[in-house]
Amino acid sequence: MRGAATGGSPETKGSQIVMDRNASHEDGNDQIEPCKQTKRDLDRADRLSRVSPGLHRFYQGKLRTGLKCVVRGLDDYGIWYTPGVAASCKEIAQDPQKVLCYTNKANAVAVVSDGSRVLGLGNIGAKAALPVMEGKALLFKHLGGIDAYPIVLDTQDPDEIIRAVAWISPGFGGINLEDLATPKCFRILESLRERLDIPVWHDDQQGTAAVTLAGVLNALRVVGKRMNDVSFCILGTGAANLAFLRILLLHSGNVDPKRVILVDSHGIVHPGRQDAAQAMQTNPTKWEYAAITNGDGRRGGLREALVGADVLIAAACPGPDAFEAKWIKAMAPDAIAFLLANPVPEIWPWEAKKAGARIVGTGRSDFPNQINNSLGFPGIFRGTLDVQARTITDEMTIAAAEAIASAATCGGASLSESWLVPTMMDVDVVVEVAVAVGGKAIEQSLARCPLSEQDRRETAKRRITDAQQETEILMREGHIPLPPKNMDIHPDMDVP
Amino acid sequence: MRGAATGGSPETKGSQIVMDRNASHEDGNDQIEPCKQTKRDLDRADRLSRVSPGLHRFYQGKLRTGLKCVVRGLDDYGIWYTPGVAASCKEIAQDPQKVLCYTNKANAVAVVSDGSRVLGLGNIGAKAALPVMEGKALLFKHLGGIDAYPIVLDTQDPDEIIRAVAWISPGFGGINLEDLATPKCFRILESLRERLDIPVWHDDQQGTAAVTLAGVLNALRVVGKRMNDVSFCILGTGAANLAFLRILLLHSGNVDPKRVILVDSHGIVHPGRQDAAQAMQTNPTKWEYAAITNGDGRRGGLREALVGADVLIAAACPGPDAFEAKWIKAMAPDAIAFLLANPVPEIWPWEAKKAGARIVGTGRSDFPNQINNSLGFPGIFRGTLDVQARTITDEMTIAAAEAIASAATCGGASLSESWLVPTMMDVDVVVEVAVAVGGKAIEQSLARCPLSEQDRRETAKRRITDAQQETEILMREGHIPLPPKNMDIHPDMDVP
Repeated sequence: MRGAATGGSPETKGSQIVMDRNASHEDGNDQIEPCKQTKRDLDRADRLSRVSPGLHRFYQGKLRTGLKCVVRGLDDYGIWYTPGVAASCKEIAQDPQKVLCYTNKANAVAVVSDGSRVLGLGNIGAKAALPVMEGKALLFKHLGGIDAYPIVLDTQDPDEIIRAVAWISPGFGGINLEDLATPKCFRILESLRERLDIPVWHDDQQGTAAVTLAGVLNALRVVGKRMNDVSFCILGTGAANLAFLRILLLHSGNVDPKRVILVDSHGIVHPGRQDAAQAMQTNPTKWEYAAITNGDGRRGGLREALVGADVLIAAACPGPDAFEAKWIKAMAPDAIAFLLANPVPEIWPWEAKKAGARIVGTGRSDFPNQINNSLGFPGIFRGTLDVQARTITDEMTIAAAEAIASAATCGGASLSESWLVPTMMDVDVVVEVAVAVGGKAIEQSLARCPLSEQDRRETAKRRITDAQQETEILMREGHIPLPPKNMDIHPDMDVP
Repeated sequence: MRGAATGGSPETKGSQIVMDRNASHEDGNDQIEPCKQTKRDLDRADRLSRVSPGLHRFYQGKLRTGLKCVVRGLDDYGIWYTPGVAASCKEIAQDPQKVLCYTNKANAVAVVSDGSRVLGLGNIGAKAALPVMEGKALLFKHLGGIDAYPIVLDTQDPDEIIRAVAWISPGFGGINLEDLATPKCFRILESLRERLDIPVWHDDQQGTAAVTLAGVLNALRVVGKRMNDVSFCILGTGAANLAFLRILLLHSGNVDPKRVILVDSHGIVHPGRQDAAQAMQTNPTKWEYAAITNGDGRRGGLREALVGADVLIAAACPGPDAFEAKWIKAMAPDAIAFLLANPVPEIWPWEAKKAGARIVGTGRSDFPNQINNSLGFPGIFRGTLDVQARTITDEMTIAAAEAIASAATCGGASLSESWLVPTMMDVDVVVEVAVAVGGKAIEQSLARCPLSEQDRRETAKRRITDAQQETEILMREGHIPLPPKNMDIHPDMDVP
């Protein structure tokens, strides 16, 4: 949940009031605190961005390959390569499933992008997308113990992307699509899911949906509302929000789509809109929802959509003034607002709070309730790969969401307005997500390797700690050097 | 130089005499020694093949990913991923060449195969080829310090292979094609070399050619003949031998193609052959040579082609009885015979010696003079990547061959009938090959990063030793465990 979902909001923007942020400081402590905090955190983010290119140059990238096996001399070459290797090849030729035992395929994931919608940077192409894909592969390794490899494509044609991914798939145990533009990302994902016998995942769709659902589940617990009573306003109809809506409707089975209102840059999405007929062709996924949502038949923009809503999920365009905070006043009591645009949420969290939201979540680590993909994909892939599942179903995604939600109270923590989800640094969260996802795959008869719950837990834990220990060992031995001090951040430095 | 070049030898086979190997034992010590040796080495090879599948399962493959950079906490995630990473993306978007500084692209090589001609196993497909490609990537890493990643393709169509490789190329600094069937491999290589701005290499063509040329250069030194005086008989017209012929003719500029005779499974290749017209369509690379070689206009098979030849390069089909050893008697004095089929050379080395060959080389590590690709590609790619060369020219390949030949006498060793080329375990050989290849790239104005000779030597040495040390560290720390004793080979065990 890094980049904002696509689609700005010209309609709401047209009517928005640019807020005087200095003025808001005069409203009392409630405002002053967040502003100090924000200043500090923006400084921190800025500091990270300032040192990052130098450190990328220092290490010349972030990901390498390495050996899983011993090499002690010529005889070992003869085991791993010719003549010894032929015996394994022959066994796979006879039984292709054995490739999962004799190679690293079962733990290998391709992180694939065409660079058509990278972070908040737009269409910057394959080469410029590579640092992000290497970074994602780093997270796969460090958080999930997964051997992900970045593959950036020199084509942006959806059919060619589908073919490229299908052609390279035999060596991988899973595919993670990343930073593909909307709406082509829907077709690419669906087509590859049908075509391949390994999991294909678009983290900007399913991953974001899983973590957002986890946040919503716990937010409703905090405010004491039930899923089947509440109404949703969803601002932004990009990959993330449309996937969230699908997962939400599947989740409980008792969320009535009539109680959901979708809002895009032209206002409330409904079949009567002028652009509906034509847009149906280019983005059918979105417009199919137009027919079943918005049971009241509301017209207008975000302002009208928010009236009486219990939950706002915004993944539209970076703020801080993407809409008027005061519209939140019209939401139901104990309103929940997830403002997920990055790097700056649609409106500042304290503005949402001031306008009456009881719970606010964002995509940022420097505010409470960070709704971040990194809470999802490492455990979801770990669990999927460990049981060698053929695919990742929406039910598995929901199992992940529930596991993330449960993990927030592991270790005795209590849910609260400022504690909805755990942090990504907690290995146990990843492990519990993996256990849940693998369990659902087994239940759905999708697992080629149906491990017991205990084995799933041990396997996931071992693989993740192995990966982290490897980096620790290499850092300790000076093999991965510390950066020169003058290039480094100083995490403990007090920023005034 | 593992697999035999394609094309059996029905014609010669038809006329061959199956030799009585027991009888040859009676010919004296000359025969008994090699047979004992061979028994021991076949036992060794068999032992490697027996333990190999179990060890592949134990480690579940051979290659993983790892981090190049520190991860100390959340702030480091923010440097390597969002928000910090965006700054590097923006710089690359403005200047795409910067991808070589900010990512691992400059040290990343894709090892690509469609599984259409794997080792001596034939067309076993992508999945069954994966253990070989992982093994090759392991050699790239351990011998050359290069981050190679195996990509096996779910298509065997040449145009689709070209498209697949081109599409995935932006993330790689080089492409190593592997185990592609002949003749499509020629077109795939040429097309990709034209299309991409990174080196594309087919190790079964260029790599084998480089190492074979190195062996020939030193063999001629041992027998005291000059390149422009000798005549060649080339048996087998697969990828390896046709590339060798091209490199040979380019090398000195004074090898007259008229003094080369090509022999395939139907006999001497000449324009008057019945199959010439049709074959010209399917394999033009081969038939273009028919017009310029064989100045005497000889007809017949290998037997006729060998008469008076100084050098035999056989890369045809596994032996040990692929042709009659006694035909070697008709070669010129001080004959040189490279019998490169694997796992068993076209005829046993001692049979060739008995028939009068003064120098014999094979593809095997258990006979003297192993002509093996592993002597070439690690240093060739290391040198190419270190200077960021745009391609690997035939001149760079020749520079590698000369460096390999020179390295045989490094450390004071003397060339002899049984010492033509160094062994692949010697890091200094790889380094010197890298220095030479990088130097030629600079001379040809192909290097984006023209390092001095000293820098090339230091960079190559550092990167290779780094890779080997990493594995050593992880083995020492138990992170890469030793295999259980009952699954392992016992290299010191005496095989009777």
